[in-house]
Amino acid sequence: MRATVMYGAGDVRVETVPDARLVEPTDAVVRVTRAAICGSDLWPYKSMPRSQTGRRMGHELIGVIDSVGSDVQTLKVGQLVVAPFLISDGTCEFCREGLQASCVHGARYGSDGVDGGQGEAVRVPYADGTLVVLPVEEDNAIMPSLLALTDVMSTGHHAAVSARVRPGKTAAVIGDGAVGLCGVIAAKRCGADQIILLGHHPNRIALGKQFGATDIVSERGDAAVEHVRELTGGFGAHAVLECVGLQESVLTAMDIARPGGTVGRVGVPQEDSIPVGPTFWKNVSVAGGPAPARAYIPELLPDVLEGRIKPGRVFDRVASLDEVPDGYRAMNDRESIKVLIEL
Amino acid sequence: MRATVMYGAGDVRVETVPDARLVEPTDAVVRVTRAAICGSDLWPYKSMPRSQTGRRMGHELIGVIDSVGSDVQTLKVGQLVVAPFLISDGTCEFCREGLQASCVHGARYGSDGVDGGQGEAVRVPYADGTLVVLPVEEDNAIMPSLLALTDVMSTGHHAAVSARVRPGKTAAVIGDGAVGLCGVIAAKRCGADQIILLGHHPNRIALGKQFGATDIVSERGDAAVEHVRELTGGFGAHAVLECVGLQESVLTAMDIARPGGTVGRVGVPQEDSIPVGPTFWKNVSVAGGPAPARAYIPELLPDVLEGRIKPGRVFDRVASLDEVPDGYRAMNDRESIKVLIEL
Repeated sequence: MRATVMYGAGDVRVETVPDARLVEPTDAVVRVTRAAICGSDLWPYKSMPRSQTGRRMGHELIGVIDSVGSDVQTLKVGQLVVAPFLISDGTCEFCREGLQASCVHGARYGSDGVDGGQGEAVRVPYADGTLVVLPVEEDNAIMPSLLALTDVMSTGHHAAVSARVRPGKTAAVIGDGAVGLCGVIAAKRCGADQIILLGHHPNRIALGKQFGATDIVSERGDAAVEHVRELTGGFGAHAVLECVGLQESVLTAMDIARPGGTVGRVGVPQEDSIPVGPTFWKNVSVAGGPAPARAYIPELLPDVLEGRIKPGRVFDRVASLDEVPDGYRAMNDRESIKVLIEL
Repeated sequence: MRATVMYGAGDVRVETVPDARLVEPTDAVVRVTRAAICGSDLWPYKSMPRSQTGRRMGHELIGVIDSVGSDVQTLKVGQLVVAPFLISDGTCEFCREGLQASCVHGARYGSDGVDGGQGEAVRVPYADGTLVVLPVEEDNAIMPSLLALTDVMSTGHHAAVSARVRPGKTAAVIGDGAVGLCGVIAAKRCGADQIILLGHHPNRIALGKQFGATDIVSERGDAAVEHVRELTGGFGAHAVLECVGLQESVLTAMDIARPGGTVGRVGVPQEDSIPVGPTFWKNVSVAGGPAPARAYIPELLPDVLEGRIKPGRVFDRVASLDEVPDGYRAMNDRESIKVLIEL
């Protein structure tokens, strides 16, 4: 089969790899019909050291079940399924608590001996625990929004949940990438009254406004902090959704949080440590981490199916599998917010 | 009047200072009957640069109202009052939300032109907002426990609230100082099933056990982390109360928090920044800061008055005002957990 392999910064190839196949009796093999390139795929695209063996890429996918192992109970060949960006067994203590991102048998696509999602097929371990069956046809027009549930919408939702967005309160979303834009959707869905989007890109900001952003802050650093304070009676935002991960944006997040407020971090941390003063002295909590997408997909699915939220609008480019390398380039060059891969 | 002044590390004196007096119409002057030396007073005791003018010390006090300004509404001369360790106006947005530690008119004893608590009398700004009237006589035997509400018990409670201690769950308390010991009381009061106290001092550990600690971890660093994991099925504690403030203890707090758990920080931070990896990847929240003691005193007062909690037991030495310098020495040398000052 063919799949995407990264060999180093800027070097993404689509190659023939061994066919996905059942290994464990709890596995399923999924024939991928839709996949995506993630903002987090751009970190290795910018910095990965050269590798002889390469790294299989992709962790967002929808597909059709091709085969199931002998222990798979709930899934059948031919079902359309959506895969959260992490694998989870569905039965451990953390899975039962809804924190599947900490599953004791957790694994990632593209490592741990698991195929990457940007390919023709994927072996999915713990298929019963991981996959969610979709009650729609494969060519449904809402497929982009369903695909967004695999990661960016669940991650934006996790930022809102972690930041404790509450009805009638102020939320600030840092980052106008796909996750930040989904964070705007999530903040609105959680009832925030004022939603301040911090971002710099006109097309993304325009989409953010359509998603529910009430105010835009396009400055950076101290000027951004000052502007948010002006918009919030001098105090800052109750809930801050940090959807970037860079040191500067984390500092901004802590600075614009109102005393007693909460920062929900979902941007993959690119820095080693954070200064604690700004949070401690004003009793600001810092929460968040990898989203338990497996818990959120069933929660968010009705809103997607019934058209109340349309996170699929973050996809502004469609690529074939062969066009994936150019999709990376386009996202890295900010020509595209997020690329959907049709197989 | 006489009051405590610190002139540099190790140099604490009791001196004649200008009498406390009304300045603003919202002030009250309180004649101090009980005060205390705080663990946080030991930070300057260890490190304060030499000062010509000195620094007035103390922020925990009970006393009798001596005079009130013309705008004071709720307090009368002769009433016995307890003062939380921060001054708050009682009317601003944050005070109304119960976060008096972020009062927009907030001030500290011993600075901002306010007397220190370790003296014969104190001018209390925003007296209506700050002081809580005590429904007991001045010589009541529970006076030490009432005095503990000013700071250490409220701060231990804030650690438990910030760490989201829940009934039936595991709490770990880092630090066997007065705040940590009050953290044990608070964790038990909030319903924790298992309470692990991390500390090294036999007499403090003994008191911690009486307060409700179910397990003791006396190792440090990695060995402490390993021991807590053993005690918690390998996962760590749901709620971690960080009651020290040193970099090492903060790192331990993050390491022993269970995935999805929360660290409640109340130890005054002695480090500049914290590594984020341990918290982000396991979705551990870090919360806490200066306790809104003014909100907690009314909440905790019935438990003290009715004898359900006895935080005053952390006081293991009584000193006169003249003996305050030796009280600092005794606490710094770990001869005493906490010194109560009787005036």
